[in-house]
Amino acid sequence: MSTEQALTTRAADFSAWYNDVVMRAELADYSPVRGCMVIRPRGYRIWELMQRALDEMFRATGHENAYFPLLIPQSFLAKEAEHVEGFAPQTAVVTRGGGKELEEPLVIRPTSETIIYAMLAKWVQSYRDLPVLLNQWANIVRWELRTRLFLRTTEFLWQEGHTAHATADEAEAEARLILGIYRRFAEEWMAMPVITGAKTDAEKFAGAVRTYAIEALMQDNRALQAGTSHNLGQNFAKAFEVRYQTTTGDWEYVWSTSWGVSTRLIGGLVMTHSDDKGLICPPRLAPLQVIVVPIWKSDSDQQGVLEAAQQARHSLVAAGVSAQVDDRDAVKPGAKYYHWEARGVPVRLEIGPRDVAQGQAVLARRTGGKASVPLAGLADAVRRAMDEIQAGLLEAARQRREANSVRNVKDREALKDLMNGAGGFAYAGYCGEAACETAVKEATKATIRVLPDGEFRSSPAPATCVWCGGPAVTEAVWAKAY
Amino acid sequence: MSTEQALTTRAADFSAWYNDVVMRAELADYSPVRGCMVIRPRGYRIWELMQRALDEMFRATGHENAYFPLLIPQSFLAKEAEHVEGFAPQTAVVTRGGGKELEEPLVIRPTSETIIYAMLAKWVQSYRDLPVLLNQWANIVRWELRTRLFLRTTEFLWQEGHTAHATADEAEAEARLILGIYRRFAEEWMAMPVITGAKTDAEKFAGAVRTYAIEALMQDNRALQAGTSHNLGQNFAKAFEVRYQTTTGDWEYVWSTSWGVSTRLIGGLVMTHSDDKGLICPPRLAPLQVIVVPIWKSDSDQQGVLEAAQQARHSLVAAGVSAQVDDRDAVKPGAKYYHWEARGVPVRLEIGPRDVAQGQAVLARRTGGKASVPLAGLADAVRRAMDEIQAGLLEAARQRREANSVRNVKDREALKDLMNGAGGFAYAGYCGEAACETAVKEATKATIRVLPDGEFRSSPAPATCVWCGGPAVTEAVWAKAY
Repeated sequence: MSTEQALTTRAADFSAWYNDVVMRAELADYSPVRGCMVIRPRGYRIWELMQRALDEMFRATGHENAYFPLLIPQSFLAKEAEHVEGFAPQTAVVTRGGGKELEEPLVIRPTSETIIYAMLAKWVQSYRDLPVLLNQWANIVRWELRTRLFLRTTEFLWQEGHTAHATADEAEAEARLILGIYRRFAEEWMAMPVITGAKTDAEKFAGAVRTYAIEALMQDNRALQAGTSHNLGQNFAKAFEVRYQTTTGDWEYVWSTSWGVSTRLIGGLVMTHSDDKGLICPPRLAPLQVIVVPIWKSDSDQQGVLEAAQQARHSLVAAGVSAQVDDRDAVKPGAKYYHWEARGVPVRLEIGPRDVAQGQAVLARRTGGKASVPLAGLADAVRRAMDEIQAGLLEAARQRREANSVRNVKDREALKDLMNGAGGFAYAGYCGEAACETAVKEATKATIRVLPDGEFRSSPAPATCVWCGGPAVTEAVWAKAY
Repeated sequence: MSTEQALTTRAADFSAWYNDVVMRAELADYSPVRGCMVIRPRGYRIWELMQRALDEMFRATGHENAYFPLLIPQSFLAKEAEHVEGFAPQTAVVTRGGGKELEEPLVIRPTSETIIYAMLAKWVQSYRDLPVLLNQWANIVRWELRTRLFLRTTEFLWQEGHTAHATADEAEAEARLILGIYRRFAEEWMAMPVITGAKTDAEKFAGAVRTYAIEALMQDNRALQAGTSHNLGQNFAKAFEVRYQTTTGDWEYVWSTSWGVSTRLIGGLVMTHSDDKGLICPPRLAPLQVIVVPIWKSDSDQQGVLEAAQQARHSLVAAGVSAQVDDRDAVKPGAKYYHWEARGVPVRLEIGPRDVAQGQAVLARRTGGKASVPLAGLADAVRRAMDEIQAGLLEAARQRREANSVRNVKDREALKDLMNGAGGFAYAGYCGEAACETAVKEATKATIRVLPDGEFRSSPAPATCVWCGGPAVTEAVWAKAY
């Protein structure tokens, strides 16, 4: 794809548009390894900024980072029955090492519960050793048949939290605390509104008692599961014999949680905000926040605008704003605008000879709108603009989601019409039976994304199951999902 | 190993002492996976602090982070002849994925040149695309028969820089620039003095034209290769067809480098500074810089000292110093001192009732020495103490190294006596012949660590080869190494 070609539009082919945006913004590229992508510097920078924000939130709530082995003995996976059933079909298996066949094959971690619980069994002896609040930044391999850049790849990067507690209540509180952190991160950093709630049994993590999730709605009206937090009960503690001595001297199994978000979030960011010109990146996660474009026609103008552009950059960088000057000689201003728009830079500053004379620049927002700003106090003006862009992106995404959420879908036909038509989030009553869940999936390919909690619940609660018409035990949100 | 036992001493068994220090300080632990360790939170925090410092240095010199796939087609490794010979015997091989035998086995990266050059072939077209200055933080697997925590493990964490340039001179300058960054990091952050220079052909990286290294001397007088920077010439460019069009329209192969340091550095840090009481960690890389120990006998004293301790902690944290209060009730002050000394906390503040009354604390340094400091202006006093500790550790290590470096080792017998006796760095003339290098290795197990450069060279240069007595073409530094 040459830099000059227009991108596929969302209306023409959403999926092709997504790939075009990712490739043109140089976030990632296909690798020669089946199902694995290369994360290029611009994409990796978004991930680093995400890591920094999340890591601070984890640390502020008492979690510590550690690192556990990539390779896990195959027998470990089998110790928790549901876990092995869920993950074994997806594993990459190492059978040779150092030129020899291994006695026991090793799997590349599809998630690290099993190796971590094997260590906790050694480390945890007493109530004094609890809680254990660990997090790991790591790569993960899950063999995938159909892959898409960031959204579903055989290898991906993530964080996985693993905690052990003395009581069931503490584990439940931890799982919910993290769900709240994920929601806050999605909204405050990614400007991506999410709904929260529990998963049904069919959709929960293999080995969990309960899975909570944040779910976002993409511009094509499909849902993206953006983060999950699992209450594991005592399932892994029992499988790996992780017990502690209580204050009264009894031995009890610990109660535990695990939770993760991955590089998939970058795909969510792209599909939440971007447009037919390319990437739109919220300022707080932008690899480059400001591009300064000096504009000159005559040689006599050139020096003045270049100096002013460099000064503008200096004042921004000094104020903690990332900024570059595009001083390429052979490229016209219009082509530069186009270039940086595709890469999602939130703010462009145009500085021509007249601007220099008047001590100002033109501030253009990636999300639309231009205005002159004085070069004195430039950093403040830019920060204000970025705050408005950040808030505006969240608000626009929230409005789009609400416009595409239908409450109290009344019956089978209405649900089918919606899911096979416009898509979006469908809120309706659910009888709690797996049969209805399966039937909806077969008829519409939609799944229950969450049983919504808190403010996301409809009031009054729906009384009947949207599929079978029986009494509803809960409300559910259906959508087609990535 | 229980917390109460004394550590093995260095004099008794250096190797057992090292393991005791690492385990007692909770830096790492053995995992159930052969040759793979678990990096515990205190050890991982050291790595994070190392990453932060190095990353800033890489970024300041124009490098960007990216991420390439973990799994590499086996055929890629074979494209560069020396490279495959060097790494193939050490690989872990994935032969099954998603429940099926793979058509082509995938190796877990033992280093990433091959996959990165496959991508550069796609990205680099013109001189305008150069230089490419990439770095990756990643996990690596090299099958090892004998492993030691941090020093040699089947899986380890590292950074690997990969750069491509238009000219041979630029690639050489890059390899040397990075060598300088590694040296500066070792000295300024780890307080670990190093010597620098080129490797002989026998010791260089498989696929490199020239390998530079930083080498440190551990307390047992064995050398530790702590970082390497390779000038790869056009070897990988030719193997992977990475060419660019010059300003004159010709096509040329790029010139490239790669360079890395790993979690092995943590082992180097431990063996450079620690003592028989446990870990000594330079303040700039300490997971915890200050432990505050409140001391009370009567209940009436308790509240006052605990409050003063918490206030001290607050004032330190506010000043950017990491600090904790050890307010455990059932543990005596002496046991707390012992506990935190083993964990390498550089500064301990003791606060008793008399200290509270006098508005002071006792500042004890992990490296020895106690003095009273006023609680007003505490952060400044602590920072001054930490600066002195940091500088003192570097100076002590430098003096130890110099005391254990012998210049102008005059002949075969002298070299044998030294290498089979006290050890250390032996500087002597070298004829440049592989036969002499091999003979020394067979007679003493010592290898040429570097051909020293710059200030590390002896003056006048040695005239004859220490082994064969022929004319010396260079000076070499021999040592037994990890």
